Amino acid sequence: MTITPELIERFTAIVGEKYALQAEADTAAYRHELRKLFHGLTPLVLRPGSTDEVAAILRLASETGTPIVPQGGNTGLVGGQVPDGSGDQIVLSLSRLDAIREIDADAGTMTVEAGVSLQAVREAAADRDLMFPLSIASQGTAQIGGILATNAGGVNVLAYGNARDLCLGLEVVLPSGEVLDDLRKLRKDNTGYDLRNLFIGAEGTLGIVTAAVLKLVPQPKGRQVAWATLNDPADALRLYRLASSAAGSALTAFELMAGDAARLAEAHVPDVRVPIQNETAWHVLMELSSGRGEDEARALAEEILSRALEEGAVTDAVLAASIAQGDSFWKVRESIPEAQRIESASIKHDVSVPVSSIPDFIVEAGAVVERVTPEGRLVCFGHMGDGNLHFNVQGPPGAADAFLAKWKPLNAAVHDVVRRYGGSFAAEHGIGALKRDELIATKPPVAIDLMRRIKQTLDPSGIMNPGKVI
Amino acid sequence: MTITPELIERFTAIVGEKYALQAEADTAAYRHELRKLFHGLTPLVLRPGSTDEVAAILRLASETGTPIVPQGGNTGLVGGQVPDGSGDQIVLSLSRLDAIREIDADAGTMTVEAGVSLQAVREAAADRDLMFPLSIASQGTAQIGGILATNAGGVNVLAYGNARDLCLGLEVVLPSGEVLDDLRKLRKDNTGYDLRNLFIGAEGTLGIVTAAVLKLVPQPKGRQVAWATLNDPADALRLYRLASSAAGSALTAFELMAGDAARLAEAHVPDVRVPIQNETAWHVLMELSSGRGEDEARALAEEILSRALEEGAVTDAVLAASIAQGDSFWKVRESIPEAQRIESASIKHDVSVPVSSIPDFIVEAGAVVERVTPEGRLVCFGHMGDGNLHFNVQGPPGAADAFLAKWKPLNAAVHDVVRRYGGSFAAEHGIGALKRDELIATKPPVAIDLMRRIKQTLDPSGIMNPGKVI
Repeated sequence: MTITPELIERFTAIVGEKYALQAEADTAAYRHELRKLFHGLTPLVLRPGSTDEVAAILRLASETGTPIVPQGGNTGLVGGQVPDGSGDQIVLSLSRLDAIREIDADAGTMTVEAGVSLQAVREAAADRDLMFPLSIASQGTAQIGGILATNAGGVNVLAYGNARDLCLGLEVVLPSGEVLDDLRKLRKDNTGYDLRNLFIGAEGTLGIVTAAVLKLVPQPKGRQVAWATLNDPADALRLYRLASSAAGSALTAFELMAGDAARLAEAHVPDVRVPIQNETAWHVLMELSSGRGEDEARALAEEILSRALEEGAVTDAVLAASIAQGDSFWKVRESIPEAQRIESASIKHDVSVPVSSIPDFIVEAGAVVERVTPEGRLVCFGHMGDGNLHFNVQGPPGAADAFLAKWKPLNAAVHDVVRRYGGSFAAEHGIGALKRDELIATKPPVAIDLMRRIKQTLDPSGIMNPGKVI
Repeated sequence: MTITPELIERFTAIVGEKYALQAEADTAAYRHELRKLFHGLTPLVLRPGSTDEVAAILRLASETGTPIVPQGGNTGLVGGQVPDGSGDQIVLSLSRLDAIREIDADAGTMTVEAGVSLQAVREAAADRDLMFPLSIASQGTAQIGGILATNAGGVNVLAYGNARDLCLGLEVVLPSGEVLDDLRKLRKDNTGYDLRNLFIGAEGTLGIVTAAVLKLVPQPKGRQVAWATLNDPADALRLYRLASSAAGSALTAFELMAGDAARLAEAHVPDVRVPIQNETAWHVLMELSSGRGEDEARALAEEILSRALEEGAVTDAVLAASIAQGDSFWKVRESIPEAQRIESASIKHDVSVPVSSIPDFIVEAGAVVERVTPEGRLVCFGHMGDGNLHFNVQGPPGAADAFLAKWKPLNAAVHDVVRRYGGSFAAEHGIGALKRDELIATKPPVAIDLMRRIKQTLDPSGIMNPGKVI
C-alpha cells in the first residue's frame, strides 16, 4: 500500500497538526535508533496526547489497513521500534502520554502512562521512600511503554524480577481501537486468562500499552556494593552460590565482567576506574541490600567475601566505603556498552543459559568466537545471577564493515551453543526486526504456530508493528 | 453428544484397561470434590502414564469432539476439575505423571511432572537445602498440574509470588495433541509471546500442563513466627506498613484473622490453641525469614512488634519460642477452613482488593453481610499482605439449605463492593464452574471478547474443560 495525502490528513486530524510530523528533519529522530543498525522511512509520525487519540488512530489504521509502529524512548536494541524502509509505516510515539496518574504508597503501586521515563518513575517512587526496582543503563530515555512492550530486564532482576514481574495492571489499545482497561492494583487476581502478560513482551505487535500499574517495593534501608576479582567463571559460580545461599533475596545484583570488558571501560570513559587494579581475567560486582540498614548489608557482604577468600573462590575483594564509591563501582559496569561503541565495531549476543551452565557455556562459546572471528576479542559481561550474558565480540579497530559482515555467521554459531545449553538467544532485548528470522527458524514449530494464531486473532488486519517478532 | 462404547474402547486402548475406569465405584472419587458443591457424571476416567498418552487422548478427543476434563489432586474449590452432569465428559487424571525429572540445585530449578504433589515438591527441595515457597493447606493432595492450572497462591505469596511467579517453563499438550515443549530453566527469555502464562491460570481450558520447571529459592536460615492481637483492621494495616517497611522481602507471611475465626478453629479442631487468649476482635500471624539465621529473624520481629506496641497498633504480641511453637501458631490459621466445615454451612468469598483498602472494605462488605444474611456470622481471614481475604459467612447451625440458598444474592452483593474497590472476586481459587456466569456478566466486555477469541483459537473444537472459566 501507499499512504495517500488524504489518509495522512485523516490521521493528522486526530492529533492536530502540531503533533503530526511529516518533514524529514522532524521525523529523523524517530526513524533511526541508537546503534544505527536500523534506518527506516516514514511519511508521518503521530504524537497522540491521550488514550482516546491512540484508540482513534488504531481504529482508522484498522479500517484502512495502515501499518503502525509504536515507539517509546527509542532505546531498543533490536529495531523493534523503527519503521522499515518501505515508507508505508506510520510511527506512533507515546511520549506525550507522560502523566504519573497516581501513587498509592500503602498499596505499593504507581499508575503511569506509557510515555513516562523509567528514571521519572524511579524518582517519583524514591520521593515516597519506595523503589521501582527495574534499572537499565538507558533509563533516562527509555519509557515505561517500551519497558513493558519489551519486558525489559536490567541489573536487579535477580531479586525483583523483570518488567513482567513488576507490572500489576495494564491499559491497552487493541488494534481495533477498543480499550482493554485492566489497571488494577491487585497482587492476586485469577479471573480468567492472563491477558496482561500477552501484551507484555509482545513488542507492540498485538496492541499498544498506554498505561500501567507498576509494583513498588520498600526502599532498602542499606546497600553494600562489593567488587571481587576471580580466576575464572567457575569461581564466579562458586561465589554466586555462596552469596545466594547466605543472602537470599538480599542479593540484589551479581554482575560478571571479563577483565577485558572492565579495562575497556576504564580506557574509554572518563572517570571510570576499576576498583581492583590487577591483571585478573574476571571481575564480579555484587550488591547486597537490607531492609534494616547499612550495617547489616555490610556484614552480609563481609561474611560472603571472607568465606569466598578462605575457599579460594576469589583472589581479591573490596567493599565500597561510601555510597559514592559504590556508584563508582557501578559506573565501571555501566560504561562497558559505551566503551564498546567507542573502541570499534562489535557483534552482540544477548543470551541466557541456566546459571549453573555459565562456566561451561563461556568456554564453549568462547572457542566458537575464536574459530569464526579470530580477529575479534571477547568482551563478555552481564547479569550472571540471571544466567544472562552480553556475550559480545569486539572487532579490530577500523575495518568495521569486514568485521560486521560476520554478524550473522557468528550469531548462528554462538546461538547453536546457546540452544545446546537450553538457553535463549534473546534474553532481555527482545526479537524486534533483528532476530525475527532466526526466531522463526529455530523456535519449535508448535510454538511459532501458536504465536501466529494469537497474532492473527488479536490483529487480524496485521497493522501492528508488521515485520517484528513474528 | 453421547459417548459410545466404541469410543470408550478407543480411549481405553491408549492407556490400557487397568487405567481406564468405568465402574461407578471407581470413578466416584473423580466425580465429586471436597466441598461437595459439585457432583458430576462420567462414563470414563483415564489415567495416562506419559505425556505421549495424554497427547494421544487429546488427539482422539479433538477428532471425535469428545469433551475432556483434566484433573489433578481434586482439591479445587470452584468445581473446575469436576465433570458436569451430562455424563458426556471424560475425566483425564494426571496423577500417574508423578516423576520428579530433575533437580538442578545450581540453577535453582526442579523439573516435575504434573501429578507430583505440592508436598512432594516441597520435600524434595528441602532435601537439597532449597525451598519451593508455594504453600497451601491442601498441599499433601494438590498436584503441580492443578497448582499451575489454577495459578494457586497461598500463604507466602507476599514474598515469593504465586504459582505463575514460580514457574520458569512448561510442557503442555495442546487440544490438537501437539506438545508444546518449553521446559526451560531460564530466568530471562524474551523470545516472542508469553505462551507459558496463557496456560497458567487457564484451568485446563486451553491445554493440559504435563510437566513444569519450577523455581526454587534458598532455604531461609532462620524463621520467626509471631502473633499479635489488634483492635481493628486499620491497626492491622498500620502493623503491615511497619513490618513491610522494616523487613522488605524478609516479611514472608502476614495473615489476618477475625477473633471469631480463630475461636472457631480452637473450638473444633484438636490441638489448636490461640496463642493469645483475650477477647480481641482481630489477630495477625506474621512470619519473618532471614538468610542469615534465627537471631536476625527474631530481632526483626522484636523490632517490628515493639514499635507496633509503642504506637498502639497492637494490643498484645508474642513470639514463637521454638519451631514447634511457630507451627502451632500456623495451625490456628490453617485450621479455620476445617473448623468452618464442622461448625455449619458457610458462604465463601475469595476476594482481593488493594492492601490499603482492606480496612474500609471489611467495614463496607461487613455491613452488606449483615443486611443480606443477618442470621450469619462473619468469619473473615486471609492473606492480608496480598490484599486477599477469605470473606466467609458462617450459617446458623442446622438450616444449611435455607442459608445456602442465599449464596448467589450474598455473593452478588459482596462482589459489588469488591468491584467498587477495584478488586477481584476470584483472587486465588479461580473461576471454574462456580463463578463462570458472574465472570462473563461482570468482566469488561472487551476482556471477555479477547478471552473468547483466544479460547476459540487454541481450542477450536471446544473439547477442553467445557463449561469452565469462559
